[in-house]
Amino acid sequence: METKMKTVILIGALGKMGQAALSGLGKHKVITAGRSGNVDHIVDITDEQSIEALYAKVGHFDAVVNTVGVCEYAPFVEMTEAQWMTTVMSKMMGQINLVRIGQKYIADGGSFTLISGILNIKPIPFAIADATTSGAIDTFVKCVAYEMPRNTRINVVNPTVLTEAWDVYGEMMPGFEPVPGKLVGKAFERSVDGFITGEVIFVDA
Amino acid sequence: METKMKTVILIGALGKMGQAALSGLGKHKVITAGRSGNVDHIVDITDEQSIEALYAKVGHFDAVVNTVGVCEYAPFVEMTEAQWMTTVMSKMMGQINLVRIGQKYIADGGSFTLISGILNIKPIPFAIADATTSGAIDTFVKCVAYEMPRNTRINVVNPTVLTEAWDVYGEMMPGFEPVPGKLVGKAFERSVDGFITGEVIFVDA
Repeated sequence: METKMKTVILIGALGKMGQAALSGLGKHKVITAGRSGNVDHIVDITDEQSIEALYAKVGHFDAVVNTVGVCEYAPFVEMTEAQWMTTVMSKMMGQINLVRIGQKYIADGGSFTLISGILNIKPIPFAIADATTSGAIDTFVKCVAYEMPRNTRINVVNPTVLTEAWDVYGEMMPGFEPVPGKLVGKAFERSVDGFITGEVIFVDA
Repeated sequence: METKMKTVILIGALGKMGQAALSGLGKHKVITAGRSGNVDHIVDITDEQSIEALYAKVGHFDAVVNTVGVCEYAPFVEMTEAQWMTTVMSKMMGQINLVRIGQKYIADGGSFTLISGILNIKPIPFAIADATTSGAIDTFVKCVAYEMPRNTRINVVNPTVLTEAWDVYGEMMPGFEPVPGKLVGKAFERSVDGFITGEVIFVDA
């Protein structure tokens, strides 16, 4: 069986998670998007109009892979409403809006793959907003899969920290084992090229 | 062993879930609160100032029990950003703010008990925003418990539909078995009078 070549919109393509996802999308035509830098399209997932414009400009596409979501980090007792809302409007509502708006544009049988993160399963200090919104996205994907239109699918990749990002995050994550981006890329590939839907694809060691 | 009498703020006291919670708080001094009606204090959990004012007015309290959270119901493909945000700002951020602000006021060793709902585990049509925010609150409670200050505790009651509300919700919940409010009251009692923390207390049949 050969995998059909698909047009995939990859959001956050230049980031470490985006590069990890890209490693699993080698068979496809990848259209890159992000907030800045050398990408095919600039998009801000916290802005509905920006999302709508991205989909309209791309035209036909079979898959959306999102690897971004801004989170604020602080101890719970110090975290402000503004810090909570930055996280909620990006990692949670930004991703939900990518699907809510994108379901109107995506090809029949297409797929969405979102990103959460292992801290909802393995909590650490400073990460309560990240964990809470990851829990929201994991739940959203499991529940919304039943009502996606036109045979479209949806999954979320929930990875632990990347080997490529261990120098940045390692110190705040004692006892965690990083995983290589290439393995996380496989998770994105399994979502885009498989038939699964409503799944939280954990990549942990 | 006798349970020490505690001062408990019960938010949403006049609703069906509030009455269910009340049935488990008989040993305590209950201060009632809600958006309207014959309660000790009027409070709107979507308004930070209103939450702050409630705690300041009550003064000393040992427990907060919340039974409210507004949700909008619609098919996912029809749900608007405004409907999503109503749900997020009430059921999710309203409850998080009750804890975020309340942790400054609550007595040492006090407890917070929040409310979610079984639809994140048993999805049904129209309930994606309810399910997603329930998933967020269940995750929040599990993760934030590790950093609650001054030996305060936090749990969430995740009930199925109440027998007392079956006439309203029964038709949209085929195959669900309702539980009596009195049993849900026991869950609130177990949270307020127990030593557990970080738990999602499911009440399902």
